[in-house]
Amino acid sequence: MPQQSKHLFAAVPTADEVTKAHERIHGYVHRTPLLSSAAINQLIGANIFFKCENFQKVGAFKSRGAVNAVFSATAEQIQHGVCTHSSGNHAQALARAAKLRGIPSRIVMPETAPKVKVSAVKGYGGQIVFCAPTLSDREATLKGVMAETGAFEVHPYNDLAVITGQATCAKEVYEDSNGSPDVVITPVGGGGLLSGTLASTLAWSPHTKVYGAEPSGADDAYRSLKAGEWIPSINPITIADGLLTSLGSNTWPIIRDHVSGILTADETYIVQAMRLIWERMKLVTEPSAAVPLAALLQLRGERRFQPFQNKHIVIILSGGNLDPDRIPWNQS
Amino acid sequence: MPQQSKHLFAAVPTADEVTKAHERIHGYVHRTPLLSSAAINQLIGANIFFKCENFQKVGAFKSRGAVNAVFSATAEQIQHGVCTHSSGNHAQALARAAKLRGIPSRIVMPETAPKVKVSAVKGYGGQIVFCAPTLSDREATLKGVMAETGAFEVHPYNDLAVITGQATCAKEVYEDSNGSPDVVITPVGGGGLLSGTLASTLAWSPHTKVYGAEPSGADDAYRSLKAGEWIPSINPITIADGLLTSLGSNTWPIIRDHVSGILTADETYIVQAMRLIWERMKLVTEPSAAVPLAALLQLRGERRFQPFQNKHIVIILSGGNLDPDRIPWNQS
Repeated sequence: MPQQSKHLFAAVPTADEVTKAHERIHGYVHRTPLLSSAAINQLIGANIFFKCENFQKVGAFKSRGAVNAVFSATAEQIQHGVCTHSSGNHAQALARAAKLRGIPSRIVMPETAPKVKVSAVKGYGGQIVFCAPTLSDREATLKGVMAETGAFEVHPYNDLAVITGQATCAKEVYEDSNGSPDVVITPVGGGGLLSGTLASTLAWSPHTKVYGAEPSGADDAYRSLKAGEWIPSINPITIADGLLTSLGSNTWPIIRDHVSGILTADETYIVQAMRLIWERMKLVTEPSAAVPLAALLQLRGERRFQPFQNKHIVIILSGGNLDPDRIPWNQS
Repeated sequence: MPQQSKHLFAAVPTADEVTKAHERIHGYVHRTPLLSSAAINQLIGANIFFKCENFQKVGAFKSRGAVNAVFSATAEQIQHGVCTHSSGNHAQALARAAKLRGIPSRIVMPETAPKVKVSAVKGYGGQIVFCAPTLSDREATLKGVMAETGAFEVHPYNDLAVITGQATCAKEVYEDSNGSPDVVITPVGGGGLLSGTLASTLAWSPHTKVYGAEPSGADDAYRSLKAGEWIPSINPITIADGLLTSLGSNTWPIIRDHVSGILTADETYIVQAMRLIWERMKLVTEPSAAVPLAALLQLRGERRFQPFQNKHIVIILSGGNLDPDRIPWNQS
């Protein structure tokens, strides 16, 4: 875990850096569409567009950052391949990006990781290194891999090239939107997507308000922002397994200085939002991706929706990797 | 049930009629995208594009035909509203189309229809008339409604204006495809979508081969084509509840004279195709919509895929109305 509290200054990727990243990853990732639903707009009382990163390569926005990090690294840096620790979408995204550049990747995953995720990483050519399911063993194992192989670490969200890659998502939003959105909302876990979104907003749509959305059971970003200092995520409990982590030393300052607010959503609203996106948009989303809509539903339910009423809102639908055998409303 | 066997000649909608229908329904229906998946292409061994009618209004292509029928009818014809018998997507589509034109709709549905479908029709302003769940009572009830109210019948698939409306889907396919597709495959139940697709193919892409795909457990179109005469669907058994009906007197001759073939798919392949579209495309589809891909999977499995190998194929993903509480692979 980086020492977040020591970082006082936000290093926000510039318009030029994001534009270069966008050119770099072009051809390796999809330009995803903005979709909307009249039924959801009517239900919520706003004009919402969903940026469909569930259609992205490996099913999540993580492809953008991973490809940018792997392809912006120097040949010397990656002469022994890349590595990371992740049991989520970044693992697959990095394995795929490494394969595209023709280098090996080593992914540290807990022994408890679902088989479907392990085989997905293997399917992209990643070499799995198992560890015990604790943060300390995960970090120790990764250090061991780096020492042994000389592999170049690509952190899931704290790496600046990763943040810059994630920023390309909001860049496309601003290029493809009809008029400037009033509001953009992204899920927030480690903060890579939210930081990148803030970077592109500062560059291309400075009047747009950007919010992060996180589960009430993993509300470290909300608490950090309220306290004005970095607070880690301790024993988070949520179905949104992509949002368990704490903010990073590079993402926290960007969020602290530029975000308009952090919204939170209870578990029942997250499941309700997933179902709504399913029924009205015919889209499969993972729980993390449904959190921004869940937060809006909760604001409505609690009569705190006024600031968003009738606004032009873009929600980054961050990923679609929902296991068909683990649909939350069918779990006993 | 119309007397299908008496109809010897195919009345195929012309390019001019389909173009007029397309202009007529514009503004009331979505122009849906063509999406593809590199993973599915690799798995199947072809270049497949999915025409996403699951994104269509009311979640299915049926909106096209219903809107065209309602808006092409004369004011006199519809002075007492419209009516139909349907427990499926046509029911919602007709209720919605009637509401758009500001006229009442009466929908005959079996008492056994799922509550979710009944309330969807009511949500669009349709008046439900319940009947016993038999074909004879359904038809008798509809006749009663027509006699009593003077409502104008819009048949789910045998109405020529409905067929012409469904044809606009393939018209968009040909306008939006990069080069002429080698093959287009649609599900076939009553044959409205398949007939319309054949009409647009004759008009704009005469070298494209058009196939229907149906469940092995409801293979009346396959058997009709093989026998060269209309054979009704008797006791069909399939998860694809949109494809239970027999071909109509207006759809059968068009299909008989112009289709390149009827493919069939077993139930296990239909469920497999739904899962594949879920996992790889993040799209929710109803079982009927998965039948064309299921048929291709089965052809591969049975080593009969050669005619489709590496072809440019368009599949009409006909609808996405899958009840989140009735996911087939989660049923006990």
